[in-house]
Amino acid sequence: MERIGFIGLGIMGRPMCLNLLRAGYRVTVWNRTATKAMDMTAAGAEAAASPKELASNADVIITMVSDSPDVVEVILGEQGVVQGAGAGSVVIDMSTISPAVTRDIAARLAQKGVAMLDAPVSGGDTGAVNATLAIMVGGDKDVFYKCLPIFQAMGKAITHVGGNGMGQTVKLCNQILVSVTNMAVCEAVTFARASGVDPHIMIEATRNGAAGSWQLANLGPKIVARDFAPGFMIDLQQKDLRLALEAAREVLVATPALSLVHQLFIGNQAHAEGGEGTQALVKSIERLAAREKR
Amino acid sequence: MERIGFIGLGIMGRPMCLNLLRAGYRVTVWNRTATKAMDMTAAGAEAAASPKELASNADVIITMVSDSPDVVEVILGEQGVVQGAGAGSVVIDMSTISPAVTRDIAARLAQKGVAMLDAPVSGGDTGAVNATLAIMVGGDKDVFYKCLPIFQAMGKAITHVGGNGMGQTVKLCNQILVSVTNMAVCEAVTFARASGVDPHIMIEATRNGAAGSWQLANLGPKIVARDFAPGFMIDLQQKDLRLALEAAREVLVATPALSLVHQLFIGNQAHAEGGEGTQALVKSIERLAAREKR
Repeated sequence: MERIGFIGLGIMGRPMCLNLLRAGYRVTVWNRTATKAMDMTAAGAEAAASPKELASNADVIITMVSDSPDVVEVILGEQGVVQGAGAGSVVIDMSTISPAVTRDIAARLAQKGVAMLDAPVSGGDTGAVNATLAIMVGGDKDVFYKCLPIFQAMGKAITHVGGNGMGQTVKLCNQILVSVTNMAVCEAVTFARASGVDPHIMIEATRNGAAGSWQLANLGPKIVARDFAPGFMIDLQQKDLRLALEAAREVLVATPALSLVHQLFIGNQAHAEGGEGTQALVKSIERLAAREKR
Repeated sequence: MERIGFIGLGIMGRPMCLNLLRAGYRVTVWNRTATKAMDMTAAGAEAAASPKELASNADVIITMVSDSPDVVEVILGEQGVVQGAGAGSVVIDMSTISPAVTRDIAARLAQKGVAMLDAPVSGGDTGAVNATLAIMVGGDKDVFYKCLPIFQAMGKAITHVGGNGMGQTVKLCNQILVSVTNMAVCEAVTFARASGVDPHIMIEATRNGAAGSWQLANLGPKIVARDFAPGFMIDLQQKDLRLALEAAREVLVATPALSLVHQLFIGNQAHAEGGEGTQALVKSIERLAAREKR
């Protein structure tokens, strides 16, 4: 399996595609905005006129687009992957989308003898550039092992987590953990500061014990420094939280803390902070309460 | 400063007092339930008839009791520490209590020339036994350094975090972080399980990235195994969360996620789960939603 088709050359897809070229794969690209595909041909990729054409020249087709409807369009649309893909080929969707939609797409592809893996990633654009992405993969285990070298060209912690859709479910679990833990950090820092404690000292005194987390160690100091530059943007996180809330509702699980964070992020978006990093959640918490004693 | 008075010989105080004896300090003890003090005399301590008598024979008086009113009683009561303590002696309160009450007590003691440190701990009874407690200390810095060898006999990560009450504030920050991060883990595990993902695999796939936390690594597997034996009991955590919510209200900081966890723990207490570990929070989340598709 050496001919790869790559669809979606955004902030994540572009460096991932470059890493595949660097690993020696023959890559054909397609992007909704054609100029981005042109950039990649300079790096050694071929460009296809449509997802359908791309699929007819590839053994493995990777999609890295924004949301569930985008994946449905590029895979199942009139000029979609399914129209060109041959039996025995594999579609790997690395976008973060709905687990239920993923299972629908996998079923449609299976009718044509095309296998599917859902393989969402975490690690941000830095992880994409450095090929250190964590990749959570759902789908058939044999297909997973066949595609493992491809994943290894793009990431490091690569885990097969279950059948179709389960990669997406684990990614959404990751986003629940990230978001609610971020909330813990924002409330603690806000309380420390208002109480007159140096929040840096608070973080140092708590981070190595039962209170410790990646979010505390990494976002905590940014919150204290009022550094709201995006590692991961609130607007993008909101899409993932919407997917998580929908998926949790489908299985009748209540996630009140996740819902709370989603609501507070709406507050950030209303204040034109959707392009800031998720640590700007602290501003929504600060706005909840009066800043002056009455 | 070698004569220590120790008040409060419960699950935490007892092993802490034994570690002081082991370090060679001359220790006088007092406990509301006198039989517990008798136990300690067998280990080399002397017993006093009252906190007042204890204080008159000690350079440093340590209190390790349940809640703010208990500390007020043993320090400021009719037979309290303040009635016996000499000018130049130091009171170290290692209980977790209100920062505001701490500052009041410190002011009262200062009138008699007695210094005070608030030095709440984290690390549970295991940390107390092994002398590996984290100790967050508020109060005068010179007094802190004078007492450092005493702290080193009981703990490891010992941090001076600010003036009187600030040790308590940082301890409450610790409890905010611990509780809301626990909530993140409980929601993610519940969602994973209901979606058909093996929650062990979910934890392994997420714990080393931005979603990682002590709570995920340590309580996550217990939640999955339905092991609700207490590392730290819900009933005790509820006292600390009440203190944190009160202290946050006093400085006009809203902590909605902390409040949510406190409410869900009330659910646990209503179901006679107050003696279980904090990871039993997952049961309250499960009870929020129907477990059957309708």
